Amino acid sequence: MAHLPTRSFQAYQVFAANTNVGKTILSTGLVRAAASLSIGADKQRKKAFYLKPVQTGYPVDCDARHVKTFAPLVETSRLYAYPDPVSPHIATTEPPPDSEVLQATINEIRKFKNSLTPGETGWALLETAGGVNSPIMSGELQSKFYRPLRLPTVLVGDSHLGGISTTLTSYESLHQYGYDIPALLLFDNKSRNHQFLEKYLAKAENRPLVHVLPSPPEKLADPLADQEQLHEYYKKTEAYFQDVVQHLEQTHQKRLDRLEELGDKARTSIWWPFTQHQTVKDVTVIDSAYGDIMTTYVEPKDKLKAEGKWKEMFDGCASWWTQGLGHGSPALTRSAAYAAGRYGHVMFPECSHEPAVKLSETLLETVGEGWASRVFFSDNGSTAIEVALKMALKASQDRYVDLGKATGKIEVLGIDGGYHGDTIGAMNACSPNLYNAQVTWYKAHGHWFTPPTVLYKDSKFQITIPSEMTGGDQPQQVVTIDNLTSVFTPPKEGDARLSIYRNHIRSTLNRLTKEENRQFGALLMEPVLMGAGGMMWVDPAFQRCLVEEVRAFDGFGKETSVKNEFLAGSKNTWKGLPVVFDEVFSGCWRLGRKSAADMLQVNPDIAAYAKLLTGGLITLATTLTSDSIFNNFLSETKTDALLHGHSYTAHPIGCAVANTSLQTYREMESHGDADQARKDWGAIGHGETNNLGVWSLWDQKVVDQISRLDVVEGVVPLGSVLAIVMKTGGADGGGYGSLMSQQVQRKLRDLREEGDETEVAIFGRPLGNVVYMIASQVSTREQLNKVENILLRTLKSS
Amino acid sequence: MAHLPTRSFQAYQVFAANTNVGKTILSTGLVRAAASLSIGADKQRKKAFYLKPVQTGYPVDCDARHVKTFAPLVETSRLYAYPDPVSPHIATTEPPPDSEVLQATINEIRKFKNSLTPGETGWALLETAGGVNSPIMSGELQSKFYRPLRLPTVLVGDSHLGGISTTLTSYESLHQYGYDIPALLLFDNKSRNHQFLEKYLAKAENRPLVHVLPSPPEKLADPLADQEQLHEYYKKTEAYFQDVVQHLEQTHQKRLDRLEELGDKARTSIWWPFTQHQTVKDVTVIDSAYGDIMTTYVEPKDKLKAEGKWKEMFDGCASWWTQGLGHGSPALTRSAAYAAGRYGHVMFPECSHEPAVKLSETLLETVGEGWASRVFFSDNGSTAIEVALKMALKASQDRYVDLGKATGKIEVLGIDGGYHGDTIGAMNACSPNLYNAQVTWYKAHGHWFTPPTVLYKDSKFQITIPSEMTGGDQPQQVVTIDNLTSVFTPPKEGDARLSIYRNHIRSTLNRLTKEENRQFGALLMEPVLMGAGGMMWVDPAFQRCLVEEVRAFDGFGKETSVKNEFLAGSKNTWKGLPVVFDEVFSGCWRLGRKSAADMLQVNPDIAAYAKLLTGGLITLATTLTSDSIFNNFLSETKTDALLHGHSYTAHPIGCAVANTSLQTYREMESHGDADQARKDWGAIGHGETNNLGVWSLWDQKVVDQISRLDVVEGVVPLGSVLAIVMKTGGADGGGYGSLMSQQVQRKLRDLREEGDETEVAIFGRPLGNVVYMIASQVSTREQLNKVENILLRTLKSS
Repeated sequence: MAHLPTRSFQAYQVFAANTNVGKTILSTGLVRAAASLSIGADKQRKKAFYLKPVQTGYPVDCDARHVKTFAPLVETSRLYAYPDPVSPHIATTEPPPDSEVLQATINEIRKFKNSLTPGETGWALLETAGGVNSPIMSGELQSKFYRPLRLPTVLVGDSHLGGISTTLTSYESLHQYGYDIPALLLFDNKSRNHQFLEKYLAKAENRPLVHVLPSPPEKLADPLADQEQLHEYYKKTEAYFQDVVQHLEQTHQKRLDRLEELGDKARTSIWWPFTQHQTVKDVTVIDSAYGDIMTTYVEPKDKLKAEGKWKEMFDGCASWWTQGLGHGSPALTRSAAYAAGRYGHVMFPECSHEPAVKLSETLLETVGEGWASRVFFSDNGSTAIEVALKMALKASQDRYVDLGKATGKIEVLGIDGGYHGDTIGAMNACSPNLYNAQVTWYKAHGHWFTPPTVLYKDSKFQITIPSEMTGGDQPQQVVTIDNLTSVFTPPKEGDARLSIYRNHIRSTLNRLTKEENRQFGALLMEPVLMGAGGMMWVDPAFQRCLVEEVRAFDGFGKETSVKNEFLAGSKNTWKGLPVVFDEVFSGCWRLGRKSAADMLQVNPDIAAYAKLLTGGLITLATTLTSDSIFNNFLSETKTDALLHGHSYTAHPIGCAVANTSLQTYREMESHGDADQARKDWGAIGHGETNNLGVWSLWDQKVVDQISRLDVVEGVVPLGSVLAIVMKTGGADGGGYGSLMSQQVQRKLRDLREEGDETEVAIFGRPLGNVVYMIASQVSTREQLNKVENILLRTLKSS
Repeated sequence: MAHLPTRSFQAYQVFAANTNVGKTILSTGLVRAAASLSIGADKQRKKAFYLKPVQTGYPVDCDARHVKTFAPLVETSRLYAYPDPVSPHIATTEPPPDSEVLQATINEIRKFKNSLTPGETGWALLETAGGVNSPIMSGELQSKFYRPLRLPTVLVGDSHLGGISTTLTSYESLHQYGYDIPALLLFDNKSRNHQFLEKYLAKAENRPLVHVLPSPPEKLADPLADQEQLHEYYKKTEAYFQDVVQHLEQTHQKRLDRLEELGDKARTSIWWPFTQHQTVKDVTVIDSAYGDIMTTYVEPKDKLKAEGKWKEMFDGCASWWTQGLGHGSPALTRSAAYAAGRYGHVMFPECSHEPAVKLSETLLETVGEGWASRVFFSDNGSTAIEVALKMALKASQDRYVDLGKATGKIEVLGIDGGYHGDTIGAMNACSPNLYNAQVTWYKAHGHWFTPPTVLYKDSKFQITIPSEMTGGDQPQQVVTIDNLTSVFTPPKEGDARLSIYRNHIRSTLNRLTKEENRQFGALLMEPVLMGAGGMMWVDPAFQRCLVEEVRAFDGFGKETSVKNEFLAGSKNTWKGLPVVFDEVFSGCWRLGRKSAADMLQVNPDIAAYAKLLTGGLITLATTLTSDSIFNNFLSETKTDALLHGHSYTAHPIGCAVANTSLQTYREMESHGDADQARKDWGAIGHGETNNLGVWSLWDQKVVDQISRLDVVEGVVPLGSVLAIVMKTGGADGGGYGSLMSQQVQRKLRDLREEGDETEVAIFGRPLGNVVYMIASQVSTREQLNKVENILLRTLKSS
């Protein structure tokens, strides 16, 4: 566990605005002062620890030795040393891996912490090398390298002429990485930089307190005399440094105070989404997050008897299915900051700005390739679906009007168990379920097919066909498939399964439109995987068949010459009904490939994208469509247009972050980042062309073992998603109300790393009888190994 | 106009990572190379210009003299010089105002540009002082000070040991201000920083090309010999500098190429909100924005015959009513970057993080003060209203169920002309209008009162009461009020106007519930100002009366003992119907005071906030409510909860930016920033206590003149909003379809600054027969003066 500070143990890192600004002298003064301070009723002294993870110019230069010389009470340590007095990335041609250096650093601080006896208080300082953005041995910037620890930072400012600039740019870089900087230390000299900085930073968010310290004496040629005068300097300045240490102590305790009230404050002032407040037990207090890991703080049950504890958790629900490039991504942060600085937000209708145009271009050449020609922006998946519905229903309505058949009541076709968001329009396009049962204005506007589904069980992919299609009493398992990619291979015409689907769809459409005289305006569905409905994996052959049948069916409005006039030159013309894919969950490489449509090899007429679109940072959604839909809104009259928009439509931050995200996903794909997973799952060289394979980012062998557990009904392993459907007993009826997954998720959350460093807790959310984990696109195999082992062990004991 | 570069005129600024990194030598090399390059068929040389706006240490140091000495072909200029060789903020105790220094800088570059004869090409370089974040005379950082020009930046890196850090932190700071940095220049020395930087930046967005240049010779003691060797250096390195200049030239032309295609790219790939694409004429290409100003680029009609033009525009529609702290706000950018770096996005239900908790606390002690106890987060105004509706309708429904009166069909009460967003649920809560007429699934669920309205006409506030309330044929103007604040003063009981309102409301409620047997679940309205419906200012006395009557009316569900059990200890209990205020437009200091509810002196039970909530940067919305509503969703059953949420609920960036915005608004209020406006409008000392006054940020005298124009029906001057209702003729029917405002807005947009620097174009959007301007909360009086003058002149000529 990287987060170690407690009430009685503080740890800081020192970063400097530049080299040669007195970092080691100020570090020495600080640990020396910490060791000199007595606290508490019994006046026990703090134990102080100084750590220099990386030392260059060694042994001529040795900052730890300097500390030991002038602060003999302080324990010191040095981890990596190189003789050349140059930047660490040049000092060695054989850099140790970052993960090793980081772990060694954590271990060293932990060792000191563990050496404290009950009642002792500890104070540790880590001195970095060079400046804030100086590289470490591997070439990674130190600012980024140390980020997983997110130690409160003492910034050593530059007191020289020009030092205001280097100090503030360093401060801004640290701030942008999400570090807290409780103190800024400067020497007093004639540039009086501290005066300016104090005034300037007074208005800053989380402002550092600026401390000014007497300048050290000029270095003397005689080493002994120099040492003597430095001894004198440290003695004389002790009170200054003690002030800083005391300020840091106060900030530290206040931070913990706040963390300890944050759970209750949230509980009493916030109304959480999808939460029954009366049954909430523990509130997860999230202090920060980085990559796949959330750093949480568990407040003590009894503050008088125990301390709070840090708990690092793998973010298994990917923050509601949004994490693409992980938490706190520096690349996304920089993109967001640049867009914020260049534009803020700007007006969009009839306007153009680079981030939005670039995003449109990128979407049209990736997920929209071959079918889409227009991008409509909105704020989230639900609004993207409302927009899609408005597009589709008007297009259909226009056709019915042209044919003189319009009834004024128009419905959607969909799949039972689908979910399209929480605004009421999107809800009305879903079959009745637990989500919409409470919504006073909910009204089901549609017909929803019960779908055949796929599960991986006992090392096979099994397709279950609902009884209503086969005429039997029980759902029927008709097909067993060995290979994941083959599940997506279209059955040959005449295949029994295909015949069942076609007959069922045709007879249903005939009944609905001809016997019941109902009118439909869109086919709306989540391709491949229905997420919120319970991670239901719909048989790709069924969805493909449904689209084909709807497009070929003669019972909807027919194209008329009136509309064709507008369509001259457009890429395609929608047939039957506009086909709308809700790719909010499945799109943007979630399931391995750019879109679920690409896995089905079916082009929709309209599709919605959100969540992974912005890599997990910020809300933005897009609805893509073809000209054949767009043209229905063209006329000379304003009110024929799609009169839909939100205040922050196509906000530049969102677009810029999406551009960086999509570019990264595309690069990962072209670099073959998933090649090992593709091989393991047989997606490469399995009778399919390479780019049509399907794979899981989760380990094939582990998934296989899970599929064979008794408690498991079956597994859905698609791209970054791993969903485990648990068997439900008699009392537990399954579905959203089921408590099955809640029990497993609770076990996973309650895991502690204490004692065993290979262990992480896992943060998941219950979803009826489904336990799911979603990796980000940048989760490492090492990280997933840990999660898989825990998951397997936990399921075995369930 | 600050943006001057054209195809034939380039301008750059040089920023350095630190002092003493060779900025002047590199600047000299660059302008010298620019002046030496010939271009085009006739091999005409570029004219080069060097500008040093601020010189300290003068005349001993004079960078312009250095340039003149070694690049005699270059024109040079220096604006402000101070003898002390210190930072400019120390060099003088009487700093000139920033606006003066900036204008002088612009003028100087413009003068050079204007000196070019047709066919000549120009190249200008502005050398800043010190480092990126060094202060200018006033103490403002140069990075911020020069931002309105947003000149492409040549960053001079630091080649010394440790220089990687200072170079990258400087780069990150510039990037965060929204600058483009096409080139990074470094000297070649043994630290080999350029090698690292080149590799590191290869992956950066808008990456600068790293150029390495030979180091200059060591300074010689003999000035003549030193000069001689520098001459030699510049001669020898000419080719290197020419490479840089050519790279800059290419980047510059590519940038203009892109700007010239950005309009068409948007037109063909984007589906704009609220836009009839068939009638779009000009696309506004927004290159960047800062404060109230958008920098737009107008592509030439014929690229062979003319050049494109920059056009700076006052953002009069505040980017769809979002701008609070102006575009590109450094404070908001920093808050966004910190939250992105610390969290990215994290899970919200049953979780707690500082930005969300702090925002909840702040909202409950400002706009929610005295009535609200819970904050629900969503993404935009429309979703915030859907949430509010779900809250209110379930609370009412529960009451009806308890009474055994539930009919299953429940409607809202509202005000005709109101607008609550574009998702279908929010639409269904609005009366039929042009926005929802095209929406296939729209269904009006409610009754909407025709409201009495207020307009400022001929220097008086006039209240018009609709005929349906007075029984006459024509709307009746019953009240004329002199003072803005008095419009908000509750009429005394027994006042004629009040009696009309009360009688009308009571009889209507009786008819609806008792004769027509309709059931209602909420009173939903925009308090004070109905924005999208046409900036309709509803008589505050009517809205107050409506709330009172609804709360007192006995025809809705009655509180029952069953519900009271849950309500024990809650702050208040809703009466009649839950009163929902849509403060998406009016809230968060838009109209001067923290909320429109505060101006009405009425507490709602539920209210929605968005737009200004985040200062104009990013989308986020909140729905506040009291415990008496919240408690209706409490039980032991998950599905009784409010099952509504969006993926990025309470995203930390949005919350952090909102915290900074709200804190700034509060500080502005407590500092009395609007005191002059309050005095001018009589909001102070007008028989009311100070904190109940109402004022406009727009100049009282100008608004007065506008109110007396023949073409003007009346004016709405409230806080930052200035809406001018134009008289409509016979052919033009008024309303959203009216073209009246379009004509005025087009004139304002077409204004050019060319020739007259006091002039700005104004970007507005048509809204039927209403011309409106919205200031940000930080618009300066100087800026508004300009806008007011243009507006007045344009209206006079309409």
